[in-house]
Amino acid sequence: MSPTRVLDYPALAAKAIAARDETIPSDYLLSKSAYPLPKDRTSLITSIGFLSPEELEIINLSATKLRDAVVSRKYTSVQATTAYCKAAAIAQQATNCLTEMFMDEALERAKSLDEQLENTGKPVGPLHGLPISIKDHMDIKGHDSPSGFLDMVGNTIAEEDAHLVSVLRDAGAVFYVKTTQPQTIMHLETSCYLGTTTNPYNPELTSGGSSGGEGALIGMKGSCLGVGTDIGGSIRAPAAACGIYGFKPSIYRVPAGGCQMPMCPAGYEGIICTHGPMARSVEDLKLYMEVMVGSKPWLRDPTVQVKPWNYNFVFPQEKIRVGIMLDDGVVKPLAPMQRALKEIAAKLEASGLFEVVPYKCILAAEAWDIISKLYWPDGGAMVREHLDKVGEPMLPLSQWIIDWSKELTLEEYLALAARRDEFRRAQAEHWQASGVDVVLSPPSPTPAPALGTAKYWNYTSFWNLTNYPSAIFPTGQFVDATKDAKDTSYRPSNESERVIWDSYDAEQSSGAPISLQVSGYIGHDEATLVALENIVKVIA
Amino acid sequence: MSPTRVLDYPALAAKAIAARDETIPSDYLLSKSAYPLPKDRTSLITSIGFLSPEELEIINLSATKLRDAVVSRKYTSVQATTAYCKAAAIAQQATNCLTEMFMDEALERAKSLDEQLENTGKPVGPLHGLPISIKDHMDIKGHDSPSGFLDMVGNTIAEEDAHLVSVLRDAGAVFYVKTTQPQTIMHLETSCYLGTTTNPYNPELTSGGSSGGEGALIGMKGSCLGVGTDIGGSIRAPAAACGIYGFKPSIYRVPAGGCQMPMCPAGYEGIICTHGPMARSVEDLKLYMEVMVGSKPWLRDPTVQVKPWNYNFVFPQEKIRVGIMLDDGVVKPLAPMQRALKEIAAKLEASGLFEVVPYKCILAAEAWDIISKLYWPDGGAMVREHLDKVGEPMLPLSQWIIDWSKELTLEEYLALAARRDEFRRAQAEHWQASGVDVVLSPPSPTPAPALGTAKYWNYTSFWNLTNYPSAIFPTGQFVDATKDAKDTSYRPSNESERVIWDSYDAEQSSGAPISLQVSGYIGHDEATLVALENIVKVIA
Repeated sequence: MSPTRVLDYPALAAKAIAARDETIPSDYLLSKSAYPLPKDRTSLITSIGFLSPEELEIINLSATKLRDAVVSRKYTSVQATTAYCKAAAIAQQATNCLTEMFMDEALERAKSLDEQLENTGKPVGPLHGLPISIKDHMDIKGHDSPSGFLDMVGNTIAEEDAHLVSVLRDAGAVFYVKTTQPQTIMHLETSCYLGTTTNPYNPELTSGGSSGGEGALIGMKGSCLGVGTDIGGSIRAPAAACGIYGFKPSIYRVPAGGCQMPMCPAGYEGIICTHGPMARSVEDLKLYMEVMVGSKPWLRDPTVQVKPWNYNFVFPQEKIRVGIMLDDGVVKPLAPMQRALKEIAAKLEASGLFEVVPYKCILAAEAWDIISKLYWPDGGAMVREHLDKVGEPMLPLSQWIIDWSKELTLEEYLALAARRDEFRRAQAEHWQASGVDVVLSPPSPTPAPALGTAKYWNYTSFWNLTNYPSAIFPTGQFVDATKDAKDTSYRPSNESERVIWDSYDAEQSSGAPISLQVSGYIGHDEATLVALENIVKVIA
Repeated sequence: MSPTRVLDYPALAAKAIAARDETIPSDYLLSKSAYPLPKDRTSLITSIGFLSPEELEIINLSATKLRDAVVSRKYTSVQATTAYCKAAAIAQQATNCLTEMFMDEALERAKSLDEQLENTGKPVGPLHGLPISIKDHMDIKGHDSPSGFLDMVGNTIAEEDAHLVSVLRDAGAVFYVKTTQPQTIMHLETSCYLGTTTNPYNPELTSGGSSGGEGALIGMKGSCLGVGTDIGGSIRAPAAACGIYGFKPSIYRVPAGGCQMPMCPAGYEGIICTHGPMARSVEDLKLYMEVMVGSKPWLRDPTVQVKPWNYNFVFPQEKIRVGIMLDDGVVKPLAPMQRALKEIAAKLEASGLFEVVPYKCILAAEAWDIISKLYWPDGGAMVREHLDKVGEPMLPLSQWIIDWSKELTLEEYLALAARRDEFRRAQAEHWQASGVDVVLSPPSPTPAPALGTAKYWNYTSFWNLTNYPSAIFPTGQFVDATKDAKDTSYRPSNESERVIWDSYDAEQSSGAPISLQVSGYIGHDEATLVALENIVKVIA
């Protein structure tokens, strides 16, 4: 890393930010009078006046209902796309959630879909005319996929769509934005050369990460359906932080091809990333999975399980048996998470539709020890290589996660994989012995963390190491500074717990959404979403 | 390796052989007058006179029909078990296919099953009372699993059943023998400290391997249903050599737990072994898979795909489209294989039930280059460790397969895994472009090879690297020295081809069964067996 390169970085980053900003149509730039923006920015799209009443109606629909409205010609895809481009422009200015907008291309595509519907009377597929947002490291033909590294900017223009993107395109989707992710794609927050993506409810809090651009955008209603990826919580942390729905499928259920993973060597199987939907309703999570698995992705990608999406294969008994996991045994969740989980558990019990039982989390410390070492088989060497090319500084959260690891020999790598397999066997045995269908838990010990403090992953990464499907839903509750004050008498029992408990401030978090996580047994992706659907109906 | 240890080996091996021999009931030892045994030993069980007419009827039934006969109380399980213990004892003396027989334990179990059926009127499961043979490296509670290494003898008494063994036991199976496998479990023949397992049709030819004990035992009718394992052809090579049926499922479809893999580090995922059935009919392959997958093995083993066995998910078009792969492009199959494949293809075409098209094999040399390096990530270190403990000499076929490899660094290992993944993508694309449902090919360039010459694996290992399900069936044809003479004008184009062509002698191979292989697309295990069933019906 030469000194001249270090000096390059601020200028190059500024240039990348300016280039991104130029993709936002000038008509949708906020006027000076809009500033200072309010703390809670979730109403900005409604209040700012760029969207017509009809466009506001559009962005308040679920993706499924918007698709229906386009197919039934209540709205055109051009109207839907216009509404979402306007909303996304505002969301970008409120939260810094986009890496790119391409409204002209989107409108051209929408127009063509409208014409096809007009001419043939038939939608091209189950996502006909629907605007869909895409996390930056997934290839969209003709667009850049720099994946959180400045050195990649302009060097990763995709020659073809990622597999999943092509499935969505074939189903009739309209792409209009790509969304931010952190340096290394490995924070549960979202900061990179483009700056920090913030929470729609409070700019002092994170949007979560690594799919934090999607979280903020969808939380702002700048998208109805987006695609994130998750290897430690990267769909679920931002969904939870931003008060939306998100689903991490079991690995190898959806196709990974064309998702750039610039921090991970090819051929690596230690711990696998999967993509999944982020949305504002359960029906949209289901729509996404039905379209993706319904495309028979295994015909093109032999890593994908040959397994049709099938709701017939769900629960053994009449009532859904929900295990309540209040604590992972390492970092006790703070007041708002405990409160929401207990309230929801009581509602489920009272509904008569669920059997509610306690669920003890086992081997949580072991889980983190295994997965944190597996994340970086090269000890972060590929990351440093990317950063060094442009003198990009290593961000503290990049350093934090890399510091858990070291460069592995083959013997060490296989030993970790063996521990992972043994862990999975132990968890399966524990799960079956407990007889639960799903487990309800906090997605993290706190609601959306203050910027720079998302340093405990185990509530989400635990379900990556087990490889169980896992979904996030908003409880409808928000942090209340009075109800959710920190128990100052509690003495953290370890350093991780101390850091997290120190980072929580009920005043600062006030108004942040409280979300929960529902996880199913491995391979039970359909069952997990059906359980979620029933939970959401009960708490509505 | 100290000189004293070298001296230990012959005595220790002789002791292991004597201990094995003692497990064969003395009543079923062949008299001196039986010797010399005939070249073709497949009629020995009928001719030797140990089995009653009823017992001969029993061993001529398929496993499915024997199960039916036991459940309908035409025969008792004790009768069935007695018949198979007698037959197995003869098979052992004819081919050296057993590592152990335990007739008393088997009869006790059979008696208990008969009593349960008598008392309750109900079978305990879909394999009620059925004798099943098990390859030695799979754990049966209370029995040794030395896995082809002398140093393990007596040190690997299983404390519990392998997962698959427990599924079979729960379904009502009776275990009575364990069967041989080669040193390292990595030859396509079967020689170890117990000597060489030979082909039922000709002791100069191999029974195939590594599940060569199963191949010879079932080929001799000393078992109706056995379990082998396959990582490069180890179910299929012996099934083909011995003229029986065998099925290698896709990996992760059946549970691997409790199969000793003493040559492979835990946590290793480069190329994965799977177990599968070996039998004398397609219905028995199907029975085995239905029982195994029907046990929901994923509830206990989270590596198993959560995917019920389902025949509804089969072929897109009315006629089954069969690709004919005459040659892998590296080692051209010899006359008998070409002849049988062409004749069967013509029959399928003529039946009107199949669409028959050519199938070009791509990347065969690349396939072997990848898989042969992936087999031994430690360059054979674990093998040498086992051998050195007792001064066991490295057999030539162990040395041959290990010589393809070297100890890998993590970087090299991941690069190979990446090449494997790219290979799989390329094969999937090629398969889909060709539009076939299954591919019919030789299982090897020759029929059962002469002992010590099984040095070309690609006709089977190719389908391990693709991870496509693959089955063997006997064509009903046998090598005919006249029809199947070697084309002496053919000039091998590479060293592998020269070695194989040199090893084939039509006179020596005369009378050996000719088998073919049918392979389906990844994950299409059910479809592959349904295709096989239809093929077998047509050629019957």
